[in-house]
Amino acid sequence: MTAAAATRSEHDLLGDRDVPADAYWGVHTLRATENFPITGTPISTYPHLIDALAAVKEAAARANEELGLLAPEKAAAIIEVCREIREGKLHDQFVVDVVQGGAGTSTNMNANEVVANRALELLGHERGQYEHLHPNEDVNLGQSTNDVYPTAVKIATVYAVRELLKAMAVLQDSFARKAVEFRDVLKMGRTQLQDAVPMTLGQEFSAYAVMLDEDRSRLAEAVELVHEINLGATAIGTGLNAPAGYAESARRHLAEITGLPLVTAANLVEATQDCGAFVQMSGVLKRIAVKLSKSCNDLRLLSSGPRAGLNEINLPPVQAGSSIMPGKVNPVIPEVVNQVAFEVIGNDVAITMAAEAGQLQLNAFEPIILHSLSESITHLRAACLTLAERCVDGITANEEELRAAVENSIGLVTALNPHIGYTAATDIAKEALATGRGVAELVQEKGLLPAERLQQLLKPEVLAGSGVPAA
Amino acid sequence: MTAAAATRSEHDLLGDRDVPADAYWGVHTLRATENFPITGTPISTYPHLIDALAAVKEAAARANEELGLLAPEKAAAIIEVCREIREGKLHDQFVVDVVQGGAGTSTNMNANEVVANRALELLGHERGQYEHLHPNEDVNLGQSTNDVYPTAVKIATVYAVRELLKAMAVLQDSFARKAVEFRDVLKMGRTQLQDAVPMTLGQEFSAYAVMLDEDRSRLAEAVELVHEINLGATAIGTGLNAPAGYAESARRHLAEITGLPLVTAANLVEATQDCGAFVQMSGVLKRIAVKLSKSCNDLRLLSSGPRAGLNEINLPPVQAGSSIMPGKVNPVIPEVVNQVAFEVIGNDVAITMAAEAGQLQLNAFEPIILHSLSESITHLRAACLTLAERCVDGITANEEELRAAVENSIGLVTALNPHIGYTAATDIAKEALATGRGVAELVQEKGLLPAERLQQLLKPEVLAGSGVPAA
Amino acid sequence: MTAAAATRSEHDLLGDRDVPADAYWGVHTLRATENFPITGTPISTYPHLIDALAAVKEAAARANEELGLLAPEKAAAIIEVCREIREGKLHDQFVVDVVQGGAGTSTNMNANEVVANRALELLGHERGQYEHLHPNEDVNLGQSTNDVYPTAVKIATVYAVRELLKAMAVLQDSFARKAVEFRDVLKMGRTQLQDAVPMTLGQEFSAYAVMLDEDRSRLAEAVELVHEINLGATAIGTGLNAPAGYAESARRHLAEITGLPLVTAANLVEATQDCGAFVQMSGVLKRIAVKLSKSCNDLRLLSSGPRAGLNEINLPPVQAGSSIMPGKVNPVIPEVVNQVAFEVIGNDVAITMAAEAGQLQLNAFEPIILHSLSESITHLRAACLTLAERCVDGITANEEELRAAVENSIGLVTALNPHIGYTAATDIAKEALATGRGVAELVQEKGLLPAERLQQLLKPEVLAGSGVPAA
Amino acid sequence: MTAAAATRSEHDLLGDRDVPADAYWGVHTLRATENFPITGTPISTYPHLIDALAAVKEAAARANEELGLLAPEKAAAIIEVCREIREGKLHDQFVVDVVQGGAGTSTNMNANEVVANRALELLGHERGQYEHLHPNEDVNLGQSTNDVYPTAVKIATVYAVRELLKAMAVLQDSFARKAVEFRDVLKMGRTQLQDAVPMTLGQEFSAYAVMLDEDRSRLAEAVELVHEINLGATAIGTGLNAPAGYAESARRHLAEITGLPLVTAANLVEATQDCGAFVQMSGVLKRIAVKLSKSCNDLRLLSSGPRAGLNEINLPPVQAGSSIMPGKVNPVIPEVVNQVAFEVIGNDVAITMAAEAGQLQLNAFEPIILHSLSESITHLRAACLTLAERCVDGITANEEELRAAVENSIGLVTALNPHIGYTAATDIAKEALATGRGVAELVQEKGLLPAERLQQLLKPEVLAGSGVPAA
Repeated sequence: MTAAAATRSEHDLLGDRDVPADAYWGVHTLRATENFPITGTPISTYPHLIDALAAVKEAAARANEELGLLAPEKAAAIIEVCREIREGKLHDQFVVDVVQGGAGTSTNMNANEVVANRALELLGHERGQYEHLHPNEDVNLGQSTNDVYPTAVKIATVYAVRELLKAMAVLQDSFARKAVEFRDVLKMGRTQLQDAVPMTLGQEFSAYAVMLDEDRSRLAEAVELVHEINLGATAIGTGLNAPAGYAESARRHLAEITGLPLVTAANLVEATQDCGAFVQMSGVLKRIAVKLSKSCNDLRLLSSGPRAGLNEINLPPVQAGSSIMPGKVNPVIPEVVNQVAFEVIGNDVAITMAAEAGQLQLNAFEPIILHSLSESITHLRAACLTLAERCVDGITANEEELRAAVENSIGLVTALNPHIGYTAATDIAKEALATGRGVAELVQEKGLLPAERLQQLLKPEVLAGSGVPAA
Repeated sequence: MTAAAATRSEHDLLGDRDVPADAYWGVHTLRATENFPITGTPISTYPHLIDALAAVKEAAARANEELGLLAPEKAAAIIEVCREIREGKLHDQFVVDVVQGGAGTSTNMNANEVVANRALELLGHERGQYEHLHPNEDVNLGQSTNDVYPTAVKIATVYAVRELLKAMAVLQDSFARKAVEFRDVLKMGRTQLQDAVPMTLGQEFSAYAVMLDEDRSRLAEAVELVHEINLGATAIGTGLNAPAGYAESARRHLAEITGLPLVTAANLVEATQDCGAFVQMSGVLKRIAVKLSKSCNDLRLLSSGPRAGLNEINLPPVQAGSSIMPGKVNPVIPEVVNQVAFEVIGNDVAITMAAEAGQLQLNAFEPIILHSLSESITHLRAACLTLAERCVDGITANEEELRAAVENSIGLVTALNPHIGYTAATDIAKEALATGRGVAELVQEKGLLPAERLQQLLKPEVLAGSGVPAA
Repeated sequence: MTAAAATRSEHDLLGDRDVPADAYWGVHTLRATENFPITGTPISTYPHLIDALAAVKEAAARANEELGLLAPEKAAAIIEVCREIREGKLHDQFVVDVVQGGAGTSTNMNANEVVANRALELLGHERGQYEHLHPNEDVNLGQSTNDVYPTAVKIATVYAVRELLKAMAVLQDSFARKAVEFRDVLKMGRTQLQDAVPMTLGQEFSAYAVMLDEDRSRLAEAVELVHEINLGATAIGTGLNAPAGYAESARRHLAEITGLPLVTAANLVEATQDCGAFVQMSGVLKRIAVKLSKSCNDLRLLSSGPRAGLNEINLPPVQAGSSIMPGKVNPVIPEVVNQVAFEVIGNDVAITMAAEAGQLQLNAFEPIILHSLSESITHLRAACLTLAERCVDGITANEEELRAAVENSIGLVTALNPHIGYTAATDIAKEALATGRGVAELVQEKGLLPAERLQQLLKPEVLAGSGVPAA
Repeated sequence: MTAAAATRSEHDLLGDRDVPADAYWGVHTLRATENFPITGTPISTYPHLIDALAAVKEAAARANEELGLLAPEKAAAIIEVCREIREGKLHDQFVVDVVQGGAGTSTNMNANEVVANRALELLGHERGQYEHLHPNEDVNLGQSTNDVYPTAVKIATVYAVRELLKAMAVLQDSFARKAVEFRDVLKMGRTQLQDAVPMTLGQEFSAYAVMLDEDRSRLAEAVELVHEINLGATAIGTGLNAPAGYAESARRHLAEITGLPLVTAANLVEATQDCGAFVQMSGVLKRIAVKLSKSCNDLRLLSSGPRAGLNEINLPPVQAGSSIMPGKVNPVIPEVVNQVAFEVIGNDVAITMAAEAGQLQLNAFEPIILHSLSESITHLRAACLTLAERCVDGITANEEELRAAVENSIGLVTALNPHIGYTAATDIAKEALATGRGVAELVQEKGLLPAERLQQLLKPEVLAGSGVPAA
């Protein structure tokens, strides 16, 4: 091949193909791009996955060298390439579609080829001269797509979840600050959208903060499960072609490279076919989505108005709301979070179906699991940050209207229930509703309670209970 | 067997078993009840299915007699039993669980045995004396579960959908009457829960009526597809063991018995494995559920209050709302409809998965499709009737509050947009919001429009547009 | 009221109604049965729920007595009734529909009325003489539906999950015994349905056992979350009307009555509106369903045949498989388990939507959550037991055919990969496929490896790796 | 602003912002990109949507000019820009995220700004000089996001569905050609994965073709519903600010521009809030996905092997299947189609939730509906083409093995059922299974049928029925 050649020829099971001379990827990657023209989204869209693949390849090379299976100079070149990739280089060479057949084989092949060709370059050879360092025989040594790919997907998931956890903490803090700010703002609580009993706006926001706190705990638990890997399983979990000690050595190196407390599954046959940890992870993401969506529904409802709505709180305006209605401002940030939630819930169904469709020793549908899971995690993260920074942080309360609603409320009668009885209280409530008069006024008129006792019972701090905003 | 015997012995592939002497069902049914102790819900819970099975068995007997394959006296006895079943008799003999393995074989076997034993009785024999009339060789003659069961499920679905269509019409009428009643009640329309522009409450209710009207059309179209049957396909659609002319004869008789315009699928191999019509039907039921749920969400929102809510309409109270809050009345009827909607949407996923899981020449998972589909249809029907009769019919409007909200609204400025421009209108809106003053007042003060022109532009009938309640 | 009266009159917010004289339930229950004619399934279908309601009512009565709020004789009567209920009595009095509007109010009212009327009877009064002991003022004292109902649903869920865990253990043991039985049965492993590399049938069954073991751990974790209750929250979590000390006292008594380590949520406002623990529970049930379904798909595939299938294992015949095809036996038990799995996955979507639909201080849609969750748990339990007892326990292997397939396999070449290289091995594989010849034969013919080395590499125990069946 | 200025200043409700001087989009678009950093996917990813927006803007401009509301030179400039866009220009200016809050307002604003600024340029002005031609007052004249956006989404959907229909036809033809090619290839049919009765491979492939044919009909019906638009509804369907005649004029122009038989909804209030047509469309896409997935499951199963599988057909190899197992070829094309199907089914849930979440006069969540629907349609299209061209077209049959399996089959006994009876046939089947002997042999040995009769009954053309491959 001369320096001017635009292509180089590569060979595989199906014959010879020309590959662009400057591509680090090779014939397997080429075929995959032709076979899967589905989404137009290359795997490089998920940088955590590319980094994780590089980490796995480095760990395997180190283990293979340690076991005397890979020549030190080959190992050194592979390791150097993997570090380049983790520094952000060569990502544009990861070109296969995120939605692909073959259980991730094309992703693994893409990685093997990129690492091999760049390593060849480092060793002073030309790309494609696989007789010096081979994508399958050297870079993939002791490995199979069926252990490399799930392991890389898990590491990528851990990286992405860590970022989500941070974003959730930001949002939680944002809600918690509002809980403190609004701790003395008395308002009507509602059940089934009907006026119920008084509370503080701080209690209301505190609940959102606590929800996120719990969800973070659940997510942290779920991500623990994703630290269990099957590297060393090779094709089906029997470890065929992986020598004694390889699995443990590779795991040790991988843990060191990634800084993650990875453990090797006790039963590799099971681990190789099982997608339970992903289903569980997606279930927890769905739980987070459900609660985020509920919180955003509330924010939109509480800020409805400005005049013909509940008008309890004001979301900060972030853009004009309408192309036709002047001055209209809409709750666009909660709305976009709702939509992310719907997407996450839909993705959970896709992941569920993909997991259920696994057969015998392998689940061939992990690529769609990776894709859906990555989308869910990264979109939830963006949603949390946007919600915190562009909405919650700027929320203000209409304190006077809120207090007036409490004083005007029929729900006050509930507080008198233990003192005048459910039956008498029901009659007061009915009369208040029919006449438009106030509860306190009616109770006093009927002489059901002495005036000062009544006033005492209807004190804000009594009404809102002892509930205090969460830390 | 003496008259006093408590059991009779029956034989099948696996050996001999004792069956209660007074049971019309036999050994196959017995084993099925033992094999599938899943839900405790027998197939008799769906009387339409039992009737449809009887219709199929009668049609087959008639066709077999016509073709000279079944002795007239046997045919006559079978036909008589089928009519008894369609009159509501013997339903308690259909005891296998609705959720069962075997693609409906147990349901078909249950039907064959009940028909055979009752026919034996009519012919003067004892139950179990199958040498005179055999469940498989006579009652099931020319048939297979794989054509009988889907055909019966389709007929049952048609029956159930017809009742749903009627219930939807009841609800539509209920909404339409309210649309007429509220045709002159001016109110603020809202987009994204923010005050938008004026409309009438009649227009709002008219939309609910129109939604139902469209959904009825879609449902009527979807049920058309369910009239295509595969009777005559036998095991896999090749029609093995069904003589020439049988499929057409059976279809003709079945159409006559049921009064339905049934057609035989053009490609029986395809028809026997395909569940597309059920997926489509469930998709339409889901569409209906989505819109019912949306309408109920609106009813709950519009009736929120009584004081700290939108308080635009009043739902009729149907029960006390709280065990602790006296006088509280909740929107329990819309709430139960919401829950039915969630159930229907969940059932759609179950049906989708069951349909996707079909393999090669058959879908073995039709029992869960039947179960989920029947549940969706019957619960939606109950929901529509309850919503109409216990909620919508009794809704009243708070006309004065509604009109006041319009007059007080900033959204009025949109109507002035073409006359003063989007930019000026935006400024007016902002000032109104900040100061609490009225739009008309500000426009006049700034001399943007002459007084009478302004008044003309803000007339209710102009504001609410030309939209009129649907018929 | 004379002894002969068929009805008694009761009064509520809406007026007077006649209730059957012998009914323990009252006017609130009556209205609920009229308002919610949806499924025809009464709440008594879930005995765990009825027992849990009784436990809550007893705990509240004890706490109220302890705090001096409830007269000892009233408390004693209430407690006695609750114990009767937990002994299985009076369950037929719990008649409201499982799918109901009102956030469970009707269920709570039904319980209050049954307890009150039976307690009145014990105290020597007649039913309906609420002046002596009142459903709301005494039985429901210090409580609200909004803390009673979620607490009862949680306790009922714990009870049901415990039974599911046992059933899963039964199935796990069943798979584990087969793993031991088949530990030396060599077979071809498959990835993507294509022949891969050898393994043992024991390894294959071991994976199913391990999956269940992991799922049991996940379920046990998820049920922990359900031990967090909100009793004492009353209407919206502020604890209005519940005196100081009540929440802790009620929790203590409830823990003692149920034997469960219940804890009170730290933030009751959050706990009262949040359904996260149910979403998480359902997500874990879905995970279990996914894996059960996958395992059943495998069992059906491995037992396909008897002649034109994989024919690796034999499922025990449990019923005749066909009404038309003599001698046909179908995998009906795995099939019914698949269908339960689809149902559980559908239920998860219903639960998700119901949880997302909660608004402000309450989720009004918990009844459908209870219904769907209970159905998922009890059906999964039945599925596990049926699968263990009627299928897995009786599975046998076709050992000779399995071994022959390994010896005949092209996948053997993978084992030679490290010794002859990926490229040479690929050529051998292609030639074997094209000519129908064996891998070992071709390797030897080409002199790629010495005969004894070859034999050594292809030893079963080497091929199947070191994987051993799980304990 | 000098020629060298890098930015221009624009003003909106919230104040002033600098916009890149060379951007055709303006301040509203800028804010939207900041508010919605969710997916990183700009709306230009869906060129059909951009074209549809341009068509709507042109139709509105024409109608406004016709009604004397827009100066001819302004109209001319707007129209010219819209045509440029439909020729593929300016698409890179559509930069807002596909997942956005605000019911599509940002998308509409983006379109208004791009059209206005490019029109200003054509008119000899500079970008941002909106006093000459204004995004809202001129480009958006008589419109609202709430009618523009749904109308554009519908047109984009029609365009995309037309391409999907063509791709489905390609796949159908591909299956149909195979049905003809394999019309005489006898094979065992299977039900519940168990050997059933004989058929031809042509019948099997014909079923796939027929499924697609039916699905195309359903899709064509569903897309009809999407031709109903709400242009002229403006904000909430009352047509406020749209003069008499505008709606009809705009529709007429839009129909002419797009070549689509568009109709205006009879009730615009309903049409503006309703997403039923999208839910229905998604339901039909899900139906297609279910059946494609089922067909691909079959293809993977039938081609399982090469030695330890069914090995009935061969899929053309398109890439090496394994990084570790030499010579392994996997069914990667059907696998990728399965994954697209799972994605479509998940998207349906997201669309369902978004549709259900609509409130009062508008559904704010149409952007996620657009995104999910577009993804489903375009990915299904890619999947159909890939499946046809890279898999089905190259499928070959293993004819001899298929025929041998029929001759060796126990299922043959079903064909003798009408002649020897279900009971005798069951005994033959059991003996054949136990002894490994053939059905014909055993029937003859027992003298159940004369030899020539037997031979006649077991002729392939008789066994496979009269089913013929579809045209």
